[in-house]
Amino acid sequence: MNRHGEPSLSKKPTAAGPGRGAATAARIEQDVERIASFSESEPQIGCSRPTFSPAWRRARDYVIEEAKASGCEVKVDAAGNVHARRRGVGWEAPLWLCGSHIDSVPTGGKFDGVVGVVVALELLRAFPEAPVELVVFAEEEGTTFGLGMLGSRAWAGTLDAGELHRVRNSDGKSYFEAGRDHGVTEERLQAERLDPRRYSGLIEVHVEQGASMWDEGKHVAVVTAINGRRQYDCSFEGTANHAGSTKMGGRRDALAGAAEAIVAIEALARGLDLESDHTVMTVGRLLVEPNALNVIPGQARFTVDFRARTSEMLERGDRALRGAITAIAGRRKLTEHFAQTEELPPIPLDSRMRERLRRSGKALGIELSEVASGALHDTAIIAPFLPSVMLFIASRDGISHNPAEESRIEDIAQAVEIVAEAVRR
Amino acid sequence: MNRHGEPSLSKKPTAAGPGRGAATAARIEQDVERIASFSESEPQIGCSRPTFSPAWRRARDYVIEEAKASGCEVKVDAAGNVHARRRGVGWEAPLWLCGSHIDSVPTGGKFDGVVGVVVALELLRAFPEAPVELVVFAEEEGTTFGLGMLGSRAWAGTLDAGELHRVRNSDGKSYFEAGRDHGVTEERLQAERLDPRRYSGLIEVHVEQGASMWDEGKHVAVVTAINGRRQYDCSFEGTANHAGSTKMGGRRDALAGAAEAIVAIEALARGLDLESDHTVMTVGRLLVEPNALNVIPGQARFTVDFRARTSEMLERGDRALRGAITAIAGRRKLTEHFAQTEELPPIPLDSRMRERLRRSGKALGIELSEVASGALHDTAIIAPFLPSVMLFIASRDGISHNPAEESRIEDIAQAVEIVAEAVRR
Repeated sequence: MNRHGEPSLSKKPTAAGPGRGAATAARIEQDVERIASFSESEPQIGCSRPTFSPAWRRARDYVIEEAKASGCEVKVDAAGNVHARRRGVGWEAPLWLCGSHIDSVPTGGKFDGVVGVVVALELLRAFPEAPVELVVFAEEEGTTFGLGMLGSRAWAGTLDAGELHRVRNSDGKSYFEAGRDHGVTEERLQAERLDPRRYSGLIEVHVEQGASMWDEGKHVAVVTAINGRRQYDCSFEGTANHAGSTKMGGRRDALAGAAEAIVAIEALARGLDLESDHTVMTVGRLLVEPNALNVIPGQARFTVDFRARTSEMLERGDRALRGAITAIAGRRKLTEHFAQTEELPPIPLDSRMRERLRRSGKALGIELSEVASGALHDTAIIAPFLPSVMLFIASRDGISHNPAEESRIEDIAQAVEIVAEAVRR
Repeated sequence: MNRHGEPSLSKKPTAAGPGRGAATAARIEQDVERIASFSESEPQIGCSRPTFSPAWRRARDYVIEEAKASGCEVKVDAAGNVHARRRGVGWEAPLWLCGSHIDSVPTGGKFDGVVGVVVALELLRAFPEAPVELVVFAEEEGTTFGLGMLGSRAWAGTLDAGELHRVRNSDGKSYFEAGRDHGVTEERLQAERLDPRRYSGLIEVHVEQGASMWDEGKHVAVVTAINGRRQYDCSFEGTANHAGSTKMGGRRDALAGAAEAIVAIEALARGLDLESDHTVMTVGRLLVEPNALNVIPGQARFTVDFRARTSEMLERGDRALRGAITAIAGRRKLTEHFAQTEELPPIPLDSRMRERLRRSGKALGIELSEVASGALHDTAIIAPFLPSVMLFIASRDGISHNPAEESRIEDIAQAVEIVAEAVRR
């Protein structure tokens, strides 16, 4: 019996049998529930684990303890990412990097990010000889500091340290300040960067977060490419004034301007890509000042998140977006500020790795189909440095970033088998 | 010399001379600046004095000290309103009620409400024989507890005690809880209600908060009527989902729905009243959940503030508003909640009092014109109980509820003279 009270046969790297399958599913389910329990609110309200919060730290500590219990040594790199390798293997030997993230959006679901970490944990537990290094990337979501994938970017060196000083969480702390007690160290950042010689490649398992797999009855799929993303901060300044005594014709209402922009942005995204519907624009955050019942809003700040499959589409959308904002501000005599806060190109995933996963599935009797990722992932950051690929798990009804997010435990268990097979080849 | 270091002739109730005029203007300016200095933030950022906050209390204490120094006794009624009468007059004799409020919207201006209180203070100082009772109504704005004119309503008895238990400030405290340390006492509420036999009438001086007087070169005007107001809480519920992987066609975006409603509400207000432009609708407050950069908003809550001159227009607007909200929610498959939170009818002001003010102005060589009030005031609450009237002071460029709010000190001083003349007749 191992410490999970499962028969020890579950630790043998034999072909999938009903014994190990059931034990793996039980452990995966337990991991998912335990990590959900470490949230700021009850799981039915949603999982909130902002990076570097006490809830996030408890979840990270759980993963570290599980990895240690399965025979691993663990380190946290200077960017705040967790790494675990089986004791005795050392940190130099080239292994397969496998993992994802445990930070969440506010009131998110149980599966986003967590699934990839749990798959890596289960690989360590159920396949002790698998040449795998578990990774937990810090701050993937971007909701804590306003910029996503900070852990993987800082580790890969695609973000300079200045940016990690500039970004701020809701307490006004920078990534370095907030991360200090969690292993983030500016001084060691350069020295502890990703060294590609130590890795054979990256395999990240993640939930799809869209409806296409679920709708088409797919359970697990290989990801072909990750859409590019641009993000923007936009604000309109008008004149805060009395809601009763200021006539409609004499107003400079910043919120009315933002509302017109939001409606225009929604139509724009549809219009750019009438055929394939792979281009999306979202205004997710809006803050109004002074935000009072009887005061015409003097300021409205909002974000725009824009994803598309090709650089050409991103370029066209960018131009259209800027044009729409400027036109609305001009017509309404508002002052506009428009700043791009992020630009990530579309990332095709490694074709040999995709083929390796498909053949591994076939060896297990599973026909893996292919999908594209509308969502961004740490894999997009690591892909320029290591042969990288992703496996997607179907999301029920495509719901994600929501407490109702759900995926099948047996699909996740199947991903463990496929990755174990792939890294053995 | 009095305590303000002004010649004592300023205390004599003689006709306006340059001596008293200058002293009055200086004291008014000092009062306005002192009260502004008791705000939560620097006056250039805006005056924030939420009712029952330390800033509000310091401003109230200042008014009380000034009234006492001018020879008054002061009491706070069970609803939290301040009353001041010259010592020896007693609380039974019928006097003219004169005053306004010192609470502010967040980052408001220096003049809103304050002007009416300062006029009453200056009447007590400069016209010791004027039969006037100063009043400072508590919580006029409605931004602290989500419902306005709570002090005057509770005093007039037009709001039941249950409502004062239900409303909550940002600390989650009810009006009774938050007001306890400031004189609010549920037990005495009934006993200390407004007794119309103790008042000859109400005269409230206030800034216009609109542009019509400023644009037409008017300095002081008599108010003919106060527009009616309805307020609403509205929310749309959709599905929070991933901003990257959820296609445009598969979204239930609560903020996009709210944005469409805001644009529709703006057009609706214009359309209802194409000729006179006296009908206004404002969405002043909007809260988005989860309000994150990369999450499609699952909930958007907003307020609607609607004012019009006639009950018929309020009724038409109400129907149109409900229709628009329902249609948008239906088309977007959102769940809508729509609740009216306030209904105040249009209030015509007392015609004999208006005539009394016009004649008083004429006696001082001032031709007073008439305007309607788009904004609501405590006078609208008191008018059913006492003969009531208002004087408006021009607002520079119509700006109010904004740090840039400004009125001429000499116009306020002129209002003091007019009211002194009116209460002497």
